[in-house]
Amino acid sequence: MGQLKEECGVFGVFCNEAYDVARMTYYALFALQHRGQESAGIVVGDDGLFRTHKDAGTVEDVFTPTALEKLGLGNMAVGHVRYGTAATKDRINAQPMVVNHVKGRMAIANNGTLVNYHALREKLELDGAIFHTSSDTEVISYLITRERLTAPSIEAAVERAMPHLEGSYSLIVMSPTKLIAARDPWGFHPLCYGTTEDGRVVIASESCALNSVGATLIRDLLPGEILVVDKNGIRTIETHVGTRPHARCVFEYIYFARPDSVIDGTTVHAARVAAGEFLAKEHPVEADVVIGVPDSGLDAAIGYAKESGIPYEIGFIKNKYIGRTFIAPGQANREDKVRIKLNPISEVVKGKRVVLVDDSIVRGTTGGRIVKLLRDAGATEIHMRISAPPFLHPCYYGTDVDSCENLIACKHTPEEIAKLMDADTLGFLGLDSVKLLTGEKNACEFCTACFTGIYPTAVPDAPVCSKYDRKISEGKKKN
Amino acid sequence: MGQLKEECGVFGVFCNEAYDVARMTYYALFALQHRGQESAGIVVGDDGLFRTHKDAGTVEDVFTPTALEKLGLGNMAVGHVRYGTAATKDRINAQPMVVNHVKGRMAIANNGTLVNYHALREKLELDGAIFHTSSDTEVISYLITRERLTAPSIEAAVERAMPHLEGSYSLIVMSPTKLIAARDPWGFHPLCYGTTEDGRVVIASESCALNSVGATLIRDLLPGEILVVDKNGIRTIETHVGTRPHARCVFEYIYFARPDSVIDGTTVHAARVAAGEFLAKEHPVEADVVIGVPDSGLDAAIGYAKESGIPYEIGFIKNKYIGRTFIAPGQANREDKVRIKLNPISEVVKGKRVVLVDDSIVRGTTGGRIVKLLRDAGATEIHMRISAPPFLHPCYYGTDVDSCENLIACKHTPEEIAKLMDADTLGFLGLDSVKLLTGEKNACEFCTACFTGIYPTAVPDAPVCSKYDRKISEGKKKN
Amino acid sequence: MGQLKEECGVFGVFCNEAYDVARMTYYALFALQHRGQESAGIVVGDDGLFRTHKDAGTVEDVFTPTALEKLGLGNMAVGHVRYGTAATKDRINAQPMVVNHVKGRMAIANNGTLVNYHALREKLELDGAIFHTSSDTEVISYLITRERLTAPSIEAAVERAMPHLEGSYSLIVMSPTKLIAARDPWGFHPLCYGTTEDGRVVIASESCALNSVGATLIRDLLPGEILVVDKNGIRTIETHVGTRPHARCVFEYIYFARPDSVIDGTTVHAARVAAGEFLAKEHPVEADVVIGVPDSGLDAAIGYAKESGIPYEIGFIKNKYIGRTFIAPGQANREDKVRIKLNPISEVVKGKRVVLVDDSIVRGTTGGRIVKLLRDAGATEIHMRISAPPFLHPCYYGTDVDSCENLIACKHTPEEIAKLMDADTLGFLGLDSVKLLTGEKNACEFCTACFTGIYPTAVPDAPVCSKYDRKISEGKKKN
Amino acid sequence: MGQLKEECGVFGVFCNEAYDVARMTYYALFALQHRGQESAGIVVGDDGLFRTHKDAGTVEDVFTPTALEKLGLGNMAVGHVRYGTAATKDRINAQPMVVNHVKGRMAIANNGTLVNYHALREKLELDGAIFHTSSDTEVISYLITRERLTAPSIEAAVERAMPHLEGSYSLIVMSPTKLIAARDPWGFHPLCYGTTEDGRVVIASESCALNSVGATLIRDLLPGEILVVDKNGIRTIETHVGTRPHARCVFEYIYFARPDSVIDGTTVHAARVAAGEFLAKEHPVEADVVIGVPDSGLDAAIGYAKESGIPYEIGFIKNKYIGRTFIAPGQANREDKVRIKLNPISEVVKGKRVVLVDDSIVRGTTGGRIVKLLRDAGATEIHMRISAPPFLHPCYYGTDVDSCENLIACKHTPEEIAKLMDADTLGFLGLDSVKLLTGEKNACEFCTACFTGIYPTAVPDAPVCSKYDRKISEGKKKN
Repeated sequence: MGQLKEECGVFGVFCNEAYDVARMTYYALFALQHRGQESAGIVVGDDGLFRTHKDAGTVEDVFTPTALEKLGLGNMAVGHVRYGTAATKDRINAQPMVVNHVKGRMAIANNGTLVNYHALREKLELDGAIFHTSSDTEVISYLITRERLTAPSIEAAVERAMPHLEGSYSLIVMSPTKLIAARDPWGFHPLCYGTTEDGRVVIASESCALNSVGATLIRDLLPGEILVVDKNGIRTIETHVGTRPHARCVFEYIYFARPDSVIDGTTVHAARVAAGEFLAKEHPVEADVVIGVPDSGLDAAIGYAKESGIPYEIGFIKNKYIGRTFIAPGQANREDKVRIKLNPISEVVKGKRVVLVDDSIVRGTTGGRIVKLLRDAGATEIHMRISAPPFLHPCYYGTDVDSCENLIACKHTPEEIAKLMDADTLGFLGLDSVKLLTGEKNACEFCTACFTGIYPTAVPDAPVCSKYDRKISEGKKKN
Repeated sequence: MGQLKEECGVFGVFCNEAYDVARMTYYALFALQHRGQESAGIVVGDDGLFRTHKDAGTVEDVFTPTALEKLGLGNMAVGHVRYGTAATKDRINAQPMVVNHVKGRMAIANNGTLVNYHALREKLELDGAIFHTSSDTEVISYLITRERLTAPSIEAAVERAMPHLEGSYSLIVMSPTKLIAARDPWGFHPLCYGTTEDGRVVIASESCALNSVGATLIRDLLPGEILVVDKNGIRTIETHVGTRPHARCVFEYIYFARPDSVIDGTTVHAARVAAGEFLAKEHPVEADVVIGVPDSGLDAAIGYAKESGIPYEIGFIKNKYIGRTFIAPGQANREDKVRIKLNPISEVVKGKRVVLVDDSIVRGTTGGRIVKLLRDAGATEIHMRISAPPFLHPCYYGTDVDSCENLIACKHTPEEIAKLMDADTLGFLGLDSVKLLTGEKNACEFCTACFTGIYPTAVPDAPVCSKYDRKISEGKKKN
Repeated sequence: MGQLKEECGVFGVFCNEAYDVARMTYYALFALQHRGQESAGIVVGDDGLFRTHKDAGTVEDVFTPTALEKLGLGNMAVGHVRYGTAATKDRINAQPMVVNHVKGRMAIANNGTLVNYHALREKLELDGAIFHTSSDTEVISYLITRERLTAPSIEAAVERAMPHLEGSYSLIVMSPTKLIAARDPWGFHPLCYGTTEDGRVVIASESCALNSVGATLIRDLLPGEILVVDKNGIRTIETHVGTRPHARCVFEYIYFARPDSVIDGTTVHAARVAAGEFLAKEHPVEADVVIGVPDSGLDAAIGYAKESGIPYEIGFIKNKYIGRTFIAPGQANREDKVRIKLNPISEVVKGKRVVLVDDSIVRGTTGGRIVKLLRDAGATEIHMRISAPPFLHPCYYGTDVDSCENLIACKHTPEEIAKLMDADTLGFLGLDSVKLLTGEKNACEFCTACFTGIYPTAVPDAPVCSKYDRKISEGKKKN
Repeated sequence: MGQLKEECGVFGVFCNEAYDVARMTYYALFALQHRGQESAGIVVGDDGLFRTHKDAGTVEDVFTPTALEKLGLGNMAVGHVRYGTAATKDRINAQPMVVNHVKGRMAIANNGTLVNYHALREKLELDGAIFHTSSDTEVISYLITRERLTAPSIEAAVERAMPHLEGSYSLIVMSPTKLIAARDPWGFHPLCYGTTEDGRVVIASESCALNSVGATLIRDLLPGEILVVDKNGIRTIETHVGTRPHARCVFEYIYFARPDSVIDGTTVHAARVAAGEFLAKEHPVEADVVIGVPDSGLDAAIGYAKESGIPYEIGFIKNKYIGRTFIAPGQANREDKVRIKLNPISEVVKGKRVVLVDDSIVRGTTGGRIVKLLRDAGATEIHMRISAPPFLHPCYYGTDVDSCENLIACKHTPEEIAKLMDADTLGFLGLDSVKLLTGEKNACEFCTACFTGIYPTAVPDAPVCSKYDRKISEGKKKN
């Protein structure tokens, strides 16, 4: 039951002929919907003409048959789904953003968060710029536009703008004739590309979006790489590649990305199964059955079962009909939201010692209710295993980690948390294991700031959760 | 990927005091939503006053906060979700039906199909009755009303009306002061009741609805039993119990019901795991991995893996954001609806011999596409296992089995179907195993008409699928 | 500014060939929309098949392009718009009602109110009938159905049912092959028919609906007449004609009907102009300008100006953009709903003695605000003239006259009302003039129960407003 | 039946305390709705904080109770309704526009069209500006922002920006502490202000909006005047007053504005009555009755009747229920859209010689259908009188005059048009009369470019309709 939110998903497609790129983007955005449900948008490029539709809401909310129809055919499209980190769920912040500038027009979609946003914006304002949104993307638009005044091409303008940007970004820019993608030099978030059998080029935040439109993944962009797609084919600009230490977000594997996506060469499902296997080694227990909390804990539960030899079972049925307009029980109602969403299969857990695997504990309330459901269903022991280390530090790169006051791990040791949630035991994944989730070769390349407080860039400020920090580091030594 | 539809889900609640029974019913209908998504309705009984809201659509569509609010508090409620078998998706057929008659008022919700509907209706029409709907429930309303003219109580009227009804029904009737439930004497469809800690009585098609509102299952009504709940407590009328042979719908276990429901003492998940185990015995194969088609094939896949010793894995990710207003690809689009909804995890199946478990094959087209997805993802062998026998005969008791022309099993042998779907092998569950799904003690009590053509009641007409019928019966001898 | 509501508008069309009768009915219902905005419905008869769409809301709300499209082509249609007099704004009461009975099917739309509804319903219930609605029309359906069991034809069943019905009704019944219209023997409400150039027969509550679809009015049905339209043409059944005293509703002329409609041979506009002329004779005054309250007072204002010689002017602009979802000012707001809807043209009234004509005074609050608007705009004198006598008695035939407690005329003399509204003088139309509104020949044929308390049928009960009654009758003597 | 569209309506309010300014603006926008129905928006200023809601649609569409509620209380607000002249009906162009700049934030709403838009925009783009919309208002925002970098105040920035702007504009700008209004030096479109009893200052395109919120008109801004409202009261900046020749749009009087509005001292209704009087003098005819086409021809019809002595009557009933989602008859349908919207009162015109007054003829098709309706209703002669001269030239200041190819007056003489429309005679208002519509003192101050081709500013290009131009000027000599 995920409660943390990643910012966005981006998608772009380039064809040599007019095609129903709007619909193709629509399907791809469905595959990326887990990356953001606050707004959705598509801009179709039709021989230099741009047609836009975007609004607050899910892809299905925003794109009615009429809206999709109006976008028409085109040879390019850019799409975006968004989760607003700030109080910016407004329609005005929906992307892609379309801007007109002296050399023409561009549509721009972005996944990421700049740490130097305020500094960049102030500088632009002092130069007479006006801002319609509170989005990073508008700042990036200005920077590209200003570089474009002198740069020989739009891709050169992107190239020149990148050194000004500190933080995470996975950009797709559509000019009247080109589709350009750029991944920040740290490689925080994924951005990959592929092709279809009939030669269309597609770019997406995750490879599952490529699959959904029948494209084959070629590879992720390198951190710092710029990809340029036009009538002449695909080119790559590697000026900024290798200029910064790699700092891939480990949470993409543990939490955000879809299990069927392949990021930087590793299948997310495999990374989660590995997490479950590590958990079984780090926190073994005698038990009768391993179950995962649907859907986020299932992959790691498979791994735990594999490594431990304890049988895997389906422990919960999740109600799949509960949508965005579901009226949740209020405080006054004795009904329980968790119980409405999740129901244990009594026969599976009754009289059993259960290993319960989930991907995270944020406030601990949901977990506590799930434990209670299992006890009521007759489980005799409940051993929680969490396929990530505890969150202790804020993220400045796009992950909406709750503030320290709300993070149960900031205030309590694992033993205390187990007690609060009424679990018999509780085990978090160790930090050393995190580094091995994608195998030996990629070890250490991750950003693990949310667990360690060690940030790969300068950050605006760094509140510290000192008390428990110590415990964790002590704990690590023991592992 | 279920394609057959059961008719309905019913729910009722009785309290001794005013309570938010509308909201309670709302949550219960979410738990029953899989039993029908065409219409939803709730009638609240508030000290003799009835307030109704119902419409075409899902529970979430129909019940806005305003609609729910307007229903207000009450001491009783009846709810219904519906799948229209005929061309009757009209709002007019939404239930519960509220009728006014000489002795007052009743709300009535029903799950089932009468085989003598036309005969009963004609008789009533000849007596001056008018009909607003094409629903069984209106016929039942008239029969109860007419008996009520002379019967001493509403429950007596129900009791006297039942002998006229041939076919399946699981009724809930709310009068101004009583809540009455009745299950047909064959026991085709489930109907159970339970209580909450604070003494509310709840009745539902499936026990998962009881769980969702925090109630504890007591038991299913016996086939033919009438349950009467009022201020004096719960009474039972057993006049019609045992008057007919039991004929529980086997498809409730294999297909319709939610895995976490307990029907007539057997957990649905357990019955499906057993089906998987029988399949492994009947159709063993050498393979590397067992995967289920989400969500309907997962339970049986667990069983197949258990029995065969081949590891269970998560093979597909199902897109959970595709709702009722999703715009599916047209014929002209090269995008594939199955691929948008289901994506294989390549790493799990690449280079592997895969056992693929699903619950049914109707037309075979979806199955064929799923096989193709696995081949594209690199599976070397694909062995389909279906946790039910082939459909060969129409159902007259509420299951919308497709007509013979559309049923692939009516026209082809399993070997032919495997070939058509490009699977290496294909195995259906044997009929003898079906009878053992709920254990030895309940063996033989099932209605298996859709597989065998042997109907537990007289039926309007019985089209036969002779050619393959023979093959199946021959096949059975071999098992 | 009308505040009284008439019940309904009905429309029917018969063609010899398949035609877009749904759309034709849609346009006609727009012309009848002033007769009811609570619900709208159309049933298309397509060679015996009925397709229905109806819902709560205006014609424009209910009939989306999709809804209209789905109704398809047909050779007949019946339409209905409704104002619910009781607390019955529910969708369930929307008409036309479609009922199935032993001889087939009928759609039935009605405008009117039965005074013996409760007696008829009780009798039917004792005979085993069930009721889904609280509408007269369901009772009428049963009566026709029961007669149909023995009657040789649907029109004969209508003929036999009519003697049971006391009160107002203007019925249109569609059987699989016939369109039948019936007007009650008192002739309370209008019901007319006409034909189009290409031979389609149309029936409607008002002739303006005929005009809107390009048909030419033939005449109103006689009170008590039944019209039968089928492939053989138009026939008429006059059994019930002349069996009751005529009692046409005078309010159709003064208030409900559209000014461009012709009812029983008299144009509504002409009747209202005549009312204005009578007013000028009965209540002359020296003034500079005559203005009407839009839209209901404009016709009578023309008449007053004509007769008095005082110039007619446009005194108010009515905001035509205020629709059904307008958010009116609450008590807390200093804004004034009347001022938002109506704005005087200052130049027209400034420094002038103004004759202000409207069609009724109900509670007096709106009128008082309008007087204030004129004073604020600089009018020096304001002389209100009301083109109807004061309401003193409830209507049992379909007009939603407010209860006595709310009727200002029940509690105050005209002089007192003028004072309360801050008008310099106030004059109501005299009762004798009412009888002459449609000319000499039709004099005395009206139902004037709401003014006089003299009812043309037995009524359930007759609360009397004695105090002012006396004054009025005294006043009448003086005239 | 107006078919030309003016661009926009603007509204602003300043209070000294927190007030429900959103709702006040909502009511005012209803009064201005005739000036634009494409989009609507309100920005509330709450002590420096801005809250915005705007969207495509009418005021009633855009402002749901929830949307209005969310705007909350504030001490200032700006509102806007818009008609898009270009293909810019997009939500993105909805106003007020909110921009953030180095000195803070401003909301800006504008009515008008710049003739030097393209030149200004290109200059800004060359300086690195990016544009999100295709609206003049964004260009004006940049100009004010850039001046603000050095200007001592926001009003000084407006003052400095104005000399750059060529064309029409009626601006309202809201800064965190001030409300500023500016009218272009030509005075093309109206912009007035007033106060409420409790001291709130309101600014609006038309005085009818002031009336709707209970404010009293003080006066229109002078052409070129800037009004500044803040806690210190109202100030005025007259630097640009008198710098350009006055060129008030005559169409505001004839066509756009609401009859109850007072513009630059003249009531619109009075100007239209005067137009009718001039028409009667210029084009007298013997007739029995004068009727106006509702609603746009009614005022001039009153004037024609007054001057000619021929009685005024109500000739048509306009269907007031036809809204924005009305499904108009297609080509295939024999129903007639004009007939559905307008129905003649037969009794008024039958056997009569009719003077039919309207405000304009654009393509002539609607007029032709109206003439046919009258003939069908029995009129013996029809004399059309148009209360404006014929359109012959494009407007560059905000009026969406159709292109020359579509203007019937560009291709035909009045005699030819009369024949095409089947009218017996046709008379347009003479140009000399136009200049006298607001009385002697204001004569000649109008922009009459659409009739004469003489533009008060430089224009991008000036296509000429030479053939008929000559005829008109010849005609003029004869008058």
